[in-house]
Amino acid sequence: MGETLNPKKSNLKDSDVAVVAMAIRRASHMTTSLSLAPELQVLTWYNTDRPLSLAALRDRVVVLVAFQVLCPQSIACGVPQAQRIFDTFEPSDVAVIGLHATFEHHDAFSPSVLRAFIHEYRLKFPIALDQPNDRGPIPHTMECYKMRGTPSLVLIDKLGLVRKHAFGPCDDLRIGAEIGALTQESARSSKPARVSAA
Amino acid sequence: MGETLNPKKSNLKDSDVAVVAMAIRRASHMTTSLSLAPELQVLTWYNTDRPLSLAALRDRVVVLVAFQVLCPQSIACGVPQAQRIFDTFEPSDVAVIGLHATFEHHDAFSPSVLRAFIHEYRLKFPIALDQPNDRGPIPHTMECYKMRGTPSLVLIDKLGLVRKHAFGPCDDLRIGAEIGALTQESARSSKPARVSAA
Amino acid sequence: MGETLNPKKSNLKDSDVAVVAMAIRRASHMTTSLSLAPELQVLTWYNTDRPLSLAALRDRVVVLVAFQVLCPQSIACGVPQAQRIFDTFEPSDVAVIGLHATFEHHDAFSPSVLRAFIHEYRLKFPIALDQPNDRGPIPHTMECYKMRGTPSLVLIDKLGLVRKHAFGPCDDLRIGAEIGALTQESARSSKPARVSAA
Amino acid sequence: MGETLNPKKSNLKDSDVAVVAMAIRRASHMTTSLSLAPELQVLTWYNTDRPLSLAALRDRVVVLVAFQVLCPQSIACGVPQAQRIFDTFEPSDVAVIGLHATFEHHDAFSPSVLRAFIHEYRLKFPIALDQPNDRGPIPHTMECYKMRGTPSLVLIDKLGLVRKHAFGPCDDLRIGAEIGALTQESARSSKPARVSAA
Repeated sequence: MGETLNPKKSNLKDSDVAVVAMAIRRASHMTTSLSLAPELQVLTWYNTDRPLSLAALRDRVVVLVAFQVLCPQSIACGVPQAQRIFDTFEPSDVAVIGLHATFEHHDAFSPSVLRAFIHEYRLKFPIALDQPNDRGPIPHTMECYKMRGTPSLVLIDKLGLVRKHAFGPCDDLRIGAEIGALTQESARSSKPARVSAA
Repeated sequence: MGETLNPKKSNLKDSDVAVVAMAIRRASHMTTSLSLAPELQVLTWYNTDRPLSLAALRDRVVVLVAFQVLCPQSIACGVPQAQRIFDTFEPSDVAVIGLHATFEHHDAFSPSVLRAFIHEYRLKFPIALDQPNDRGPIPHTMECYKMRGTPSLVLIDKLGLVRKHAFGPCDDLRIGAEIGALTQESARSSKPARVSAA
Repeated sequence: MGETLNPKKSNLKDSDVAVVAMAIRRASHMTTSLSLAPELQVLTWYNTDRPLSLAALRDRVVVLVAFQVLCPQSIACGVPQAQRIFDTFEPSDVAVIGLHATFEHHDAFSPSVLRAFIHEYRLKFPIALDQPNDRGPIPHTMECYKMRGTPSLVLIDKLGLVRKHAFGPCDDLRIGAEIGALTQESARSSKPARVSAA
Repeated sequence: MGETLNPKKSNLKDSDVAVVAMAIRRASHMTTSLSLAPELQVLTWYNTDRPLSLAALRDRVVVLVAFQVLCPQSIACGVPQAQRIFDTFEPSDVAVIGLHATFEHHDAFSPSVLRAFIHEYRLKFPIALDQPNDRGPIPHTMECYKMRGTPSLVLIDKLGLVRKHAFGPCDDLRIGAEIGALTQESARSSKPARVSAA
């Protein structure tokens, strides 16, 4: 239930080379390796008028919270924390995105379950239903991010780099500190914040 | 979210008259009126080898907890409390029965959802899926008990009489006291316990 | 931090013999041995007009909660639970008594500390300051009850017998059940309740 | 129990003028006015080999948490949060200082009470006993900071400026974000972080 390493392999387009060069310099500060956050692959969006893309959120910190309706830790910790983050930060600084990563109980789940859940829990932040995968039970975005399960929390900086990737419950104080630090980075600066949480 | 009155109208068979005569004597102690707990009407049972009936549990206290998988208060309060009651009392003294009373989000719910939920939350007490109702969204047992919503908790004494009927979160200390008091009543005695919780 | 056995040695006056004869019969139901609850030895009473005595409370269940102002578990668990018990039960059924059993930090403690504490935490139940002991750090009532530390909770039945003696945090549901069961016993009956909490 | 405005009046020495010039530029970002955090006036220090001074902590973020042993909100919220902050951040980034601001129950309090409290609650961060005030019940540091009561939390940036001053319980996520943002400011830069918590 601890935190995971960042994905070892980056997923780069040609145009991302300059960004990754910066990532390499940042790497010693934050994680053992950095990679550009893969774009979300989404079947359906909720709580948003139009599909979101990470590319279009490049100047904000993005908090991606993967969950499942039938996962107790997601319901007890992950989803309420995502809502608290959404309520605490300015949307222009921090974008919170829920990702329903259906990787088990496929027979029980349907988009109707997610829709009813969002309604009953009065969730207000944008939520994506991860794209199902013909090749197996793990949906596309979850696979791409190499998530270990739900809940998972990914912090993406203003440059689109993955700066934290945690599996299981996260501490509010520490996550707050990490998000707060990332908001202070420039969207262009080559000098990364050092997230000071021990 | 407060507690409800007991059902005003009793549901009696001829053979229950003697019991109800006792209920009338008990009424001033516990509630404004007493009635025999209606039998459960169940589509499917989980966590039990064979169907349960209240009639067969007449010498035990029965704690009936109605819930829905997509009801936040059920998940946060009702279901964990049912499991705690199950873990605290001897099964030969107190029978805990969960009742999934699906009265909303019919499009999202299926027995598979309940099965996955029971598995993921590691629930060990018997759970009944309330019998759907052709005439409307309220399933049969829920209708029969005139429940106001979920979670609802019903305490049934050793004689089969409804002694408490609460809607919304219940306090552990008070519920413990009420169950503890009911366990001390004789299954035959005409002298009811006065549940002392204020 | 678990529960303790009941005191092995009873503290009896001649007039208590008949009661203890009953205690012996009850012993197999509740604990390995029963004893009459020793009378409280008190330096000062708070939240009561006159000193209380267990002898005068013989027809009620008594919940005795030992605590210390400078004991974290007392403040986090013991004292709030005592207040909840006081708020939940009718005083005519259940008497809650706090006992400040000062057995450590004697240099820091004074009755003024206790008085300020009671005021700030808005405690309403009667509280006794345990009689200091010239022979050592353990005050008289605490020594007499052989308490292992604070918080400790003692349940005394309507006959004045110790029915439970626990050290450390207690579960609300279980304590509620045990108190509820004891309230159903007759103050004269020789048939004890079997506290059904497992 | 809400947050307070920053002190309206600054307490400046001549040498602080340059810093305050910067404060004026920062004012529009963070608070309606900024002032240099007054130096602590301390009777006794605990959990530190030598007295601390804010002047000597100029390159770190300082979290000052005022509390009282006999204040329920301090014990339930303020003190545990201070310990969590101390456990979460690197001491070289964030200095946590407890301040026992004894402004009531003077008859009950003594340094022995504080010493026993620190021992029992296993607090590890440096704690100052606020200097008593001959002119009244409010001790010197508390008066100087115009604190409204306990618990109070003051965030001081790397330049020594008060950036937040809150009375009552504080949310972990928000405080984490604010501290995290302040850690990213340069100890020399004239460009302040904008604490993004809404």
